[in-house]
Amino acid sequence: MEIRKVLLTEDEMPRQWYNILADIKMNPPLGPDGKPVGPEMLTPIFPMNLIEQEVSSQRWIDIPEEVLGVYTIWRPSPLVRARSLEKALKTPARIYFKNESVSPPGSHKPNTAVPQAYYNKVFGTRKITTETGAGQWGSALSFACSQFGIECKVFMVRVSFDQKPYRKSMMEAWGGKCVASPSTETKAGRDVLEKYPDTPGSLGIAISEAVEAAVSDTTGKTKYSLGSVLNHVMLHQTIIGLEAKKQMEKIGEYPDIIIGCAGGGSNFAGLAFPFVLDKMNGKKIDIYPVEPSACPTMTRAPFVYDHGDNAGYTPLLAMHSLGHAFVPPPIHTGGLRYHGMAPTVSQLVSEGILEPRSVTQLAAFEAGIKVTRSEGLIPAPESNHAVACVIEEALKAKEEGKEKVILFNMSGHGLIDLGSYDKYLSGSLQNYELSDEELLEAEKIFENYPKPQLIKSR
Amino acid sequence: MEIRKVLLTEDEMPRQWYNILADIKMNPPLGPDGKPVGPEMLTPIFPMNLIEQEVSSQRWIDIPEEVLGVYTIWRPSPLVRARSLEKALKTPARIYFKNESVSPPGSHKPNTAVPQAYYNKVFGTRKITTETGAGQWGSALSFACSQFGIECKVFMVRVSFDQKPYRKSMMEAWGGKCVASPSTETKAGRDVLEKYPDTPGSLGIAISEAVEAAVSDTTGKTKYSLGSVLNHVMLHQTIIGLEAKKQMEKIGEYPDIIIGCAGGGSNFAGLAFPFVLDKMNGKKIDIYPVEPSACPTMTRAPFVYDHGDNAGYTPLLAMHSLGHAFVPPPIHTGGLRYHGMAPTVSQLVSEGILEPRSVTQLAAFEAGIKVTRSEGLIPAPESNHAVACVIEEALKAKEEGKEKVILFNMSGHGLIDLGSYDKYLSGSLQNYELSDEELLEAEKIFENYPKPQLIKSR
Repeated sequence: MEIRKVLLTEDEMPRQWYNILADIKMNPPLGPDGKPVGPEMLTPIFPMNLIEQEVSSQRWIDIPEEVLGVYTIWRPSPLVRARSLEKALKTPARIYFKNESVSPPGSHKPNTAVPQAYYNKVFGTRKITTETGAGQWGSALSFACSQFGIECKVFMVRVSFDQKPYRKSMMEAWGGKCVASPSTETKAGRDVLEKYPDTPGSLGIAISEAVEAAVSDTTGKTKYSLGSVLNHVMLHQTIIGLEAKKQMEKIGEYPDIIIGCAGGGSNFAGLAFPFVLDKMNGKKIDIYPVEPSACPTMTRAPFVYDHGDNAGYTPLLAMHSLGHAFVPPPIHTGGLRYHGMAPTVSQLVSEGILEPRSVTQLAAFEAGIKVTRSEGLIPAPESNHAVACVIEEALKAKEEGKEKVILFNMSGHGLIDLGSYDKYLSGSLQNYELSDEELLEAEKIFENYPKPQLIKSR
Repeated sequence: MEIRKVLLTEDEMPRQWYNILADIKMNPPLGPDGKPVGPEMLTPIFPMNLIEQEVSSQRWIDIPEEVLGVYTIWRPSPLVRARSLEKALKTPARIYFKNESVSPPGSHKPNTAVPQAYYNKVFGTRKITTETGAGQWGSALSFACSQFGIECKVFMVRVSFDQKPYRKSMMEAWGGKCVASPSTETKAGRDVLEKYPDTPGSLGIAISEAVEAAVSDTTGKTKYSLGSVLNHVMLHQTIIGLEAKKQMEKIGEYPDIIIGCAGGGSNFAGLAFPFVLDKMNGKKIDIYPVEPSACPTMTRAPFVYDHGDNAGYTPLLAMHSLGHAFVPPPIHTGGLRYHGMAPTVSQLVSEGILEPRSVTQLAAFEAGIKVTRSEGLIPAPESNHAVACVIEEALKAKEEGKEKVILFNMSGHGLIDLGSYDKYLSGSLQNYELSDEELLEAEKIFENYPKPQLIKSR
């Protein structure tokens, strides 16, 4: 019998997260005056202990015992050798994936939701607000808040809210509250609804709503939480890559290629960042973040200063962006419908260390069905973008007769997204390609914005 | 950090199933003439290799390499110490569960679906038909068939088909076909629809349809598959209890109490049977199968000879039964809406080795929410019946100040059942209690049936 899963015991779980800010140089976030913002500007939104982590340049950050205790509900996650997919593709490549779908909400998101809830608890926060796209993040935060006895309020992008009613039920099973965004509960939501009553919503709009709901609680006991993009999120997610590294070492393997889907960037960064340092030190690895071609931030949009949200409540961040006013087409991949990309990921793209790829909606689902019928697991539509790229690389390895080692992140399962699979299988899904005119139009927003510098970290 | 999960490596996975027929005596199945049926009577329905297993009295049966290979997709499953639930209940009891929700379809069902698909493949079967209640079994068989390249057709009880549209999508993602039962595709289905056009359906009716669809393929290449009740199913499921035993040994524990929900009996038997022999040999263990009070086969119905299906296509089996014409109320626990109970489980109940319990729908969901908000995992509504009994026993241990060790089976997760949680949380679920009159009425069907003997195995 061939071994399929490489396991770690709870004792072998990494005790520290990796902070890439120790190893790369970045353009600073800017305030409304165009000057770098200090940590104090973020205090109405985030608790101070998380802000400190956000700006820390310490390479290794201890994971609190209480967080490790909750992590053990599903961690360490298995590293799986995708033997059945390899056989189906007849490839000489060895394909491995980190199975992050084993968490209670079904994705990698609780890796950061749990520490965020914990640090908020320590800080004295009573309620956390957030946005969610496909619902993975909202349900992860709802789960995490239930572990620490904190209230949770989620603004869910309308198109996903309508496509996936079970996500709301899931959040409520853990005691959270969930409304469709744009909602009438915030000024940001009402303003959008007035102009575009039929809008499918966007992550940018939902972020504005959640931020507004947090800062408008004058007691200071309500904070906001973000499920991607920011540095403290990326660093919490590095537990994925740190575990994967240990697991690959156990079987004497090291990846030639690393692949993850990328919307805000967190699951991708979580797997890839612990390997990025090796690459900067001369190791030959190809690292591909994969985005939907309908929302092509890294592959087609410029590296600019832009707001993280639709209403412009957040500081300006140096990132690849389609513009904060951009509303992505209603693809069935809510987690990847974001106008920007994590500044750390964007910086590494600008340096050529990461090589972004894009995949269409139909190609992603086609790849997902291949995995479903070989590996058994039904991937999240987001993860299918990674899978499509994996299959492409595995077939290339076959053509070239090379025994490549491919490592990718199975960021979540698709059990709450089965309606989308239904549409794909019945032939009623379509692709959305952005025209160059649409992109140029979207980019006009940056005309009077400051421009980030091109920086080389090494 | 306290250890939460006890893991086994793939190498430590049991290599044999346990067959309880080696250790208990049973009333034989009877044919239409009232005489015991030989294996040959089952050949139109099942492949011979599975029939041989069904009637085998060999204690240990080797698990084929090909089955072990597919098992590794999710097995061995974790044994979890429910520390957070213990803390929430402030109980001195130590609560453990076998987490069978980690399989791709989300339940214990593939433990038997995979070997059934495998033996059918070896036998030359091209297509398998089956019934499903909540959809756990149908999706498990669809998954298993996709692993061995066999067609799969599922008749899904209408009430669940309507409640859980994602189950159909799931089966189709693996390449299976699924229709609501009663359907117009079979005589059994059409007969019921003519009399009761608005019937919610039942497992008994769906079994009739699936059996008819199999035997009416005159090439003999279509076989039927049952997801519970029969002995070969129970024995495939014993991998759960065999793993659990190894895992408890590793940490020096042994259960005082074993609990599983029971509809047809398979997840319960899978966990409990490897411990039953210990009990027959004098070990003191309390073993509780838990059924819904709306479908009380073991706790209120007689031990009789009855058909396994609604139309009377199957042999007569000695079991606890509400009568094959009984249509259980539309509770949100499709997997437990079955009129009978596995003959092996029924036999052990009749001997007093198992002590059945029942739980109402509302009590089950209340318990499920307690687990969701402590352990994080959202249990299947079926599993909630076990959880309700676990909580009762844990609170009793607290009252008595006893450090009881409780082991239960988390037979599946509830991610496809979130609509039911929604209804529970919004207060729109109700209980169904059967009156004594309804029971007496249902039992009339047995008046002219042969009666099973009361047998003591030891």
